[in-house]
Amino acid sequence: MSNPLLLRNVRPLEGEAQDVLIRDGHISRVGPALEAPEARVVDGRGGILLPGLVDAHTHLDKTHWGQPWHRHSAGPTIAERIANEREVRRRLGYSPAEQSANQVRQAIAMGTTHIRTHVDIDTDVGLAHLEGVLATRERFRDALTMQIVAFPQSGLLVRPGTRELMAEALRAGADLVGGIDPSSMDRDPVGHLDSIFALADQQGRGVDIHLHEPGMLGAFALELIAERTAALGMQGRVTVSHAFCLGMVDDAYLEQLTTLLIDNRVAIMTHGPGHIEFPPVRRLLDAGVTLCCGSDGIRDSWGPYGNADMLERAMLVGFRSGFRRDEDLEDTLGIVTQGGATVMEAEAYGVAPGCRADLVVVAGETRVEAMMNRAPRIAVINNGRLVAANGDCLI
Amino acid sequence: MSNPLLLRNVRPLEGEAQDVLIRDGHISRVGPALEAPEARVVDGRGGILLPGLVDAHTHLDKTHWGQPWHRHSAGPTIAERIANEREVRRRLGYSPAEQSANQVRQAIAMGTTHIRTHVDIDTDVGLAHLEGVLATRERFRDALTMQIVAFPQSGLLVRPGTRELMAEALRAGADLVGGIDPSSMDRDPVGHLDSIFALADQQGRGVDIHLHEPGMLGAFALELIAERTAALGMQGRVTVSHAFCLGMVDDAYLEQLTTLLIDNRVAIMTHGPGHIEFPPVRRLLDAGVTLCCGSDGIRDSWGPYGNADMLERAMLVGFRSGFRRDEDLEDTLGIVTQGGATVMEAEAYGVAPGCRADLVVVAGETRVEAMMNRAPRIAVINNGRLVAANGDCLI
Ligand SMILES: [Zn+2]
Ligand SMILES: [Zn+2]
Repeated sequence: MSNPLLLRNVRPLEGEAQDVLIRDGHISRVGPALEAPEARVVDGRGGILLPGLVDAHTHLDKTHWGQPWHRHSAGPTIAERIANEREVRRRLGYSPAEQSANQVRQAIAMGTTHIRTHVDIDTDVGLAHLEGVLATRERFRDALTMQIVAFPQSGLLVRPGTRELMAEALRAGADLVGGIDPSSMDRDPVGHLDSIFALADQQGRGVDIHLHEPGMLGAFALELIAERTAALGMQGRVTVSHAFCLGMVDDAYLEQLTTLLIDNRVAIMTHGPGHIEFPPVRRLLDAGVTLCCGSDGIRDSWGPYGNADMLERAMLVGFRSGFRRDEDLEDTLGIVTQGGATVMEAEAYGVAPGCRADLVVVAGETRVEAMMNRAPRIAVINNGRLVAANGDCLI
Repeated sequence: MSNPLLLRNVRPLEGEAQDVLIRDGHISRVGPALEAPEARVVDGRGGILLPGLVDAHTHLDKTHWGQPWHRHSAGPTIAERIANEREVRRRLGYSPAEQSANQVRQAIAMGTTHIRTHVDIDTDVGLAHLEGVLATRERFRDALTMQIVAFPQSGLLVRPGTRELMAEALRAGADLVGGIDPSSMDRDPVGHLDSIFALADQQGRGVDIHLHEPGMLGAFALELIAERTAALGMQGRVTVSHAFCLGMVDDAYLEQLTTLLIDNRVAIMTHGPGHIEFPPVRRLLDAGVTLCCGSDGIRDSWGPYGNADMLERAMLVGFRSGFRRDEDLEDTLGIVTQGGATVMEAEAYGVAPGCRADLVVVAGETRVEAMMNRAPRIAVINNGRLVAANGDCLI
């Protein structure tokens, strides 16, 4: 149980300056000039108090963050990139435990309190990546909430033995069942989806599927996913990551797909890709679809971009969406906070009394200014503990 | 004339660590362990030495940088945004001199040594914006090279009197003739282009035209621009800014347009827009088109994005282009350095002995890592003077 903490002079969601008293990992009081002689005092310096940032999709096991620079040379297709990754992995021999810890520390410094990470499970690495990430989860258990998705990066049906490894991964500590491009990767959309949904159903887990497939092919997969979500009563427990196809279909079909997502409470994760169509954020939010956002791969064999800063990620989603108005950008910030928290089923998320004290204080006049500035993180609190200050992870 | 400066321990273009001796505003020697007792010593701390960054397209007169946060509420069309700008300008009453100085200081801190700025000329503000920016150019004359484009933001033919003001602006100190969307803004592509090219020809100036027009409309304007460039012998003195149309036409026509650009040495400026198609960078570079890059508007009534950091801008161009390989990203860095220098006709640009000492030292192992990190700027030198250190403008 953490000691009491008095966070002085912060502006909850850019409101009036307040003090925030934190006890037993939760916000106990919010008000002006609070007194709590037994509490450790943290000076919020007039910054904006936000609930902790949520990175709802990353690949902790594969980052090169904190390592010497690695020159990128992979070809442009997903198959080439997966092959390149295998080669780089063998040659560099990075440790998934060490690498995931490097990214986690950076994420904490940037105000992230919740991470959902996909972790490669395949017949090549077995559960080695999972074991590394589980060690990191344990090491940072009081500083970060982490969900792990068992991710068949190299295919499920096309690599016999992977399904059994996925089941083993769930027993070993992974939380959710992953999937990837059921047609283009596994060549069998029904077979792939039936397999992962059966696994999720048997073990009572949620599902989070990488769906890069374009246009009508991806949209068909979305339909199949929604059908299985309904059939198994998994509403609210399924996320489709990327879903580029939602940015590629015509308006009438988009409306049908949106209805399917809402009816089955299927969430969509977008990281705001640079070079491809992606889900229409404003339209999906207006329709009531739950959106979350993640870093995806950070500085790994897939590409050199990313820095685990979810304020920057939100800026990029706004940038790619053509958002200029503050209200649109505030909603984008909502995707990396409440949206991600909904998807990760974060308990008591927020900045009001009674909420769990997973918080970040950022410098700036408004939330949107803080996004645009990728503003300094004055303090980061996880479960009532100060875990980062002035951009440095304290763990 | 600036005093000698000895820049110790820098890696020119990420090569071996060297010292760089600067005299009379130029690089006089590059080598290990140089001695120059009379020189002021600047510690490069092993950073990468690059030629100064070039922001070849911005709007210094209109930024809100350094002011209280301004909530954005403009509608989505260019006409609505121009009307909104007028309204905001009147309401906030910012000073173009003060505002442009704020952005210039930020740009210098970020390692920019050359800026080409468009400045609004219209029948509403007259030459007031130009006067403000001219004052800033004078104030920073020893710290930054600045070109000014007389920019008819609100239209030329549709606002009688603007052409005369443009001519006056050139006599008052503007360097180049600007233009904007000849069909969609002025409703007369031939009339608009004939008018600005005549002005440029009469006064012996270059041309830099904002061309947002999409698809075939924009491509037709590009053809007209190339024809006029040829007719007036203005090869190498014409830039088309944005040219979104180059990202929208089919391959065969793109090849024709590319040939026109090369034959007439028409340069293309892209800022890596977030939400619209834009010129295909790899293809244009491979064909030999000169590309430059700029911030465009920074935190103004058009939108809240931007921070005058050309390393970040290069990262965004790479991100939007789908670049992941280091060689593609190195070429992107070339656009914010040599590409911009070519367009601005910067004299003796580079990091070799004899070059003008317009330099930036950035932290990092490689140039691409520095781009991805938007790495700390250790030192910025303009015309042989130290103008920024550790991210702070010294002017
Ligand atoms: Zn992913
Ligand atoms: Zn512009």
